Amino acid sequence: DFPMMGSDSVQPVPRFRQELFRMMAMAADMLQRLGARVASVDMGLQQLPDGQSLPIPPIILAELGSDPTKGTVCFYGHLDVQPADQGDGWLTDPYVLTEVDGKLYGRGATDNKGPVLAWINAVSAFRALEQDLPVNIKFIIEGMEEAGSVALEELVEKEKDRFFSGVDYIVISDNLWISQRKPAITYGTRGNSYFMVEVKCRDQDFHSGTFGGILHEPMADLVALLGSLVDSSGHILVPGIYDEVVRLTEEEINTYKAIHLDLEEYRNSSQIEKFLFDTKEEILMHLWRYPSLSIHGIEGAFDEPGAKTVIPGRVIGKFSIRLVPHMNVSVVEKQVTRHLEDVFSKRNSSNKMVVSMALGLHPWIANINDTQYLAAKRAIRTVFGTEPDMIRDGSTIPIAKMFQEIVHKSVVLIPLGAVDDGEHSQNEKINRWNYIEGTKLFAAFFLEMAQLH
Amino acid sequence: DFPMMGSDSVQPVPRFRQELFRMMAMAADMLQRLGARVASVDMGLQQLPDGQSLPIPPIILAELGSDPTKGTVCFYGHLDVQPADQGDGWLTDPYVLTEVDGKLYGRGATDNKGPVLAWINAVSAFRALEQDLPVNIKFIIEGMEEAGSVALEELVEKEKDRFFSGVDYIVISDNLWISQRKPAITYGTRGNSYFMVEVKCRDQDFHSGTFGGILHEPMADLVALLGSLVDSSGHILVPGIYDEVVRLTEEEINTYKAIHLDLEEYRNSSQIEKFLFDTKEEILMHLWRYPSLSIHGIEGAFDEPGAKTVIPGRVIGKFSIRLVPHMNVSVVEKQVTRHLEDVFSKRNSSNKMVVSMALGLHPWIANINDTQYLAAKRAIRTVFGTEPDMIRDGSTIPIAKMFQEIVHKSVVLIPLGAVDDGEHSQNEKINRWNYIEGTKLFAAFFLEMAQLH
Repeated sequence: DFPMMGSDSVQPVPRFRQELFRMMAMAADMLQRLGARVASVDMGLQQLPDGQSLPIPPIILAELGSDPTKGTVCFYGHLDVQPADQGDGWLTDPYVLTEVDGKLYGRGATDNKGPVLAWINAVSAFRALEQDLPVNIKFIIEGMEEAGSVALEELVEKEKDRFFSGVDYIVISDNLWISQRKPAITYGTRGNSYFMVEVKCRDQDFHSGTFGGILHEPMADLVALLGSLVDSSGHILVPGIYDEVVRLTEEEINTYKAIHLDLEEYRNSSQIEKFLFDTKEEILMHLWRYPSLSIHGIEGAFDEPGAKTVIPGRVIGKFSIRLVPHMNVSVVEKQVTRHLEDVFSKRNSSNKMVVSMALGLHPWIANINDTQYLAAKRAIRTVFGTEPDMIRDGSTIPIAKMFQEIVHKSVVLIPLGAVDDGEHSQNEKINRWNYIEGTKLFAAFFLEMAQLH
Repeated sequence: DFPMMGSDSVQPVPRFRQELFRMMAMAADMLQRLGARVASVDMGLQQLPDGQSLPIPPIILAELGSDPTKGTVCFYGHLDVQPADQGDGWLTDPYVLTEVDGKLYGRGATDNKGPVLAWINAVSAFRALEQDLPVNIKFIIEGMEEAGSVALEELVEKEKDRFFSGVDYIVISDNLWISQRKPAITYGTRGNSYFMVEVKCRDQDFHSGTFGGILHEPMADLVALLGSLVDSSGHILVPGIYDEVVRLTEEEINTYKAIHLDLEEYRNSSQIEKFLFDTKEEILMHLWRYPSLSIHGIEGAFDEPGAKTVIPGRVIGKFSIRLVPHMNVSVVEKQVTRHLEDVFSKRNSSNKMVVSMALGLHPWIANINDTQYLAAKRAIRTVFGTEPDMIRDGSTIPIAKMFQEIVHKSVVLIPLGAVDDGEHSQNEKINRWNYIEGTKLFAAFFLEMAQLH
C-alpha cells in the first residue's frame, strides 16, 4: 500500500503546510513500527517573503541497529512534493495514487515518496524474514526539499557529531535513470540559483484602454529583462557566467561516449520533436556539465484562460540558472543582478526593479571509487543483471553537496525511477516494476555493503 | 440600494455564467416594476475556444412610452464585470458593495452597474413625482460586454427596423471623466485587437533540472516574441502599424490644448511617478489618437507566489493593440501575425507557434454638433454648473461604433465616474457624489432633449 500517496503535501504553497505535518507523522509512525528509534525534530518557523511565517514540518531522524562491527548507511528522503493542479493536464487526480497499465500515477510517486517507501520496504523485508539487518540503518526524512530544504542544513550541522557521528555512507534516491529500463548510479548534480525580478509601477493594476500608451508598462520592462537572459540556442547571455565552468578534457568526453543513451527513445519518451543538440555527448554535457537558464513564469500578470485587458501594475519574473562545477552561487548572484540592472537602466523606465535570489544551491560531484559506489554497482548487477549507467544529474539535490561538506562522508545517489516518470510535471508516475525492483535493489545493497565494509 | 452590486457576474470566467443570468433577471424585474415593456431575448450558446459551449445571458430590450411627438432616447448598459480576486489587493470583498469615505467599492461599481442604476433611478424620479417622462425611453442591457459583446451585434442587426426603428439617440455611460470633479462628454473611443500567441513544445511541463539546457524552451521563445512588440518609449514595433493612423493637424492639436487636465492631479490620482510624456497634449494624444500596445500576461507558465522549477511545456502570451481612426482590424491582424512569424522563424525553434486574434473591435468617432451633444452639455451646465470636457476615450466601447454603423443614429457617451474609479482594476469604486449627481444629470438630460428635439 501507499499510505503517503494520498496527501497533497505540496511545496511551496502555504495552505498545504498542515498536510505536510500529517505526512511526517505518518512516516515517523511507520518507522517506529519497524522498530526504529525515531525523533521528530521541531525546526521552528519559516519566514515567507510576504511577512507571513509558517511552521516548518519536523525532520525525522530514525535509527535501526547500532552494532559497531557493521557499517552504517544513512538514507535521506523527502515527503513534500511540487504543486499539482488537475486542470493543468493531469489525467488522474494528482493526489490519489492511480495504477494504469503498471504505472502508478500521483504527485510525489517518483519524487520522492516512492523511493522513500522502497527503502522502508527493503528494511521491512529483513524484518519479515526475521533476519538481522546486514548494516546499521539511519533515516533522515524532511518535508521542505522542494522549498530548498529550509532548516535541514541547520539540523545536519547540529547533529554532525551526534546522529551523523556513526554514519559511514549516505544514500539519496531523489533522481531518475536516463533510460526507461537501465538502472544508473549518480555521482554529480547541478546546483541552482533561483531569481525573482520584480518590476513595479504601482500596486494596483491599470485598464489598458485608460492607461495604454502613456505608461512605462511593467510587463514591457519585464519581458525585455527576461528576454535578455538567454538566446535561442540556449546560450546564457549574462556576462561572465561561463568563466568558472570547468574546462572540458578529452578524457571527460570519453566518459560521455561510454554512456548508453538511445537518443531516439529519449526523444520519444520525452515527446520532444527536436533537442537543441544532435549528438548524445552534447546533450549529456548540456544537462550535466554546462549551466542552463530556464524562465519559469510571471507572478502578478493575467494568467487565466480568456482575455483580460489589464496592464499589470506589479509583476515578478521567475527564472533560474542550473550551476555546474566550479560556478559559485554568490558570484552568479552578482553577475545576474548587475546584468539585469544594466538592461533595465538602458530602458529609462520610471518603474522600480528589484532583483533577488530566492535560492542558491551548490553543484555537487563525488568520487566514484568509494566503497558504496562499488556496492551499488554489485547490487545492480545482482538485481538487474546489468552494469549501471554512471551518470550525473542536471537537477539539483543540494543535500548531496551539503552532506559532503558538513558530514564529510561519501554520498551516493541511487535512483529508482525511469526517465519518463515526469517528476515536477503533470502525470508524474513511478512504474510498478521500478518500485518493486528498486526495493530489491536496496535490500541487495545492504548485503553488498556488509561484505565490502 | 444597490441590488445588482452583490453579484459576481464576471466575464470571461465560465463558472460565473449562472450569476449573469440571475443579474439579467434582476434588472428585467426592476424595469418591469417601473412600468416598462420588457423582453429578455435568448441569444443561444457561446462556443468557447476549448470546445465547451455556454449559454449567453439574455439581452434585455425595454421600452417606456411611445409618444410619437416625443424624441426617443435609447440607453445601452452592461451588467457583466471584469474578474476580481480579493487576494490581488482588494481592501474589501469585491462582490460586496462597501462604502468607505463616500466611495462605493465593488467590482462593477463604476463599470457599468452604477451608471445603469443611475439611469434607472432618473426614470424612477419622474415616476415618483408622477410626472410624464419628457422623452420616450428604451433600454438595451447585455451581459457579455467584457467578453466582446458576443451576440449583441446579431440582435441589433435583427432589431434594426423594429426595436430601433423609433430610436433617435443612443446614450452610453460606460467610461470615465478625465478629472476627479469635472464632468465630460465623450465623442470617440479607441478600438482593440486582442492577440493570443501560443508557443508549444509539448502539453506536459518539464523539470528544469532534467531538461534545462537541451530544449527550445517555450518561455524563451514567447518572451522574445512579446519583447519584439513595443519599445521602451511605448512605440509599437510591428511594421506598418502606424500607416493608417490619421495625420495630426494644427487644428486637432488645438482641441487638446482646450482641455482641462491637471497633470499633477492626474499623476497623483493614478499613483504614477512619471508618464512616458511630459505635456498634456502628448498624453491626451497617446491615449486617444495613437495606438498603444499592452502585454497582459501569460497563461500556462508558473504564476503563483514562491519558486517552482518548471519549464512550462505550452504557454500563451496575451497582448492587445488599441486601435485609432483609420486603422483596420483585419489589416492589423495580418501585420501582427506576419511580424510574429518573422521573429519566430529567425529563432529556428522546434516549437510550434500559433497566433490568433481573439477580439477585433473598431475605433469610433462622432459628430459633436448632434442634438444630443448639445442637450448633454446643457444638462451638465444645469447640474454641475460647468462646461464639460469634450473628450475621447482610450478604452474600447465597440457598441458605439456598432450602433453608429448598424442603426445609423447619433451615439453619445456621457460618463458618470471619476478618473480614479479603477475600472478593471483592484478596488474599483464609484463616488457616492458621482452616483447621485449622475442620476440628476440623466434626469436633466431627458428634459433638455425634450426641448431640443
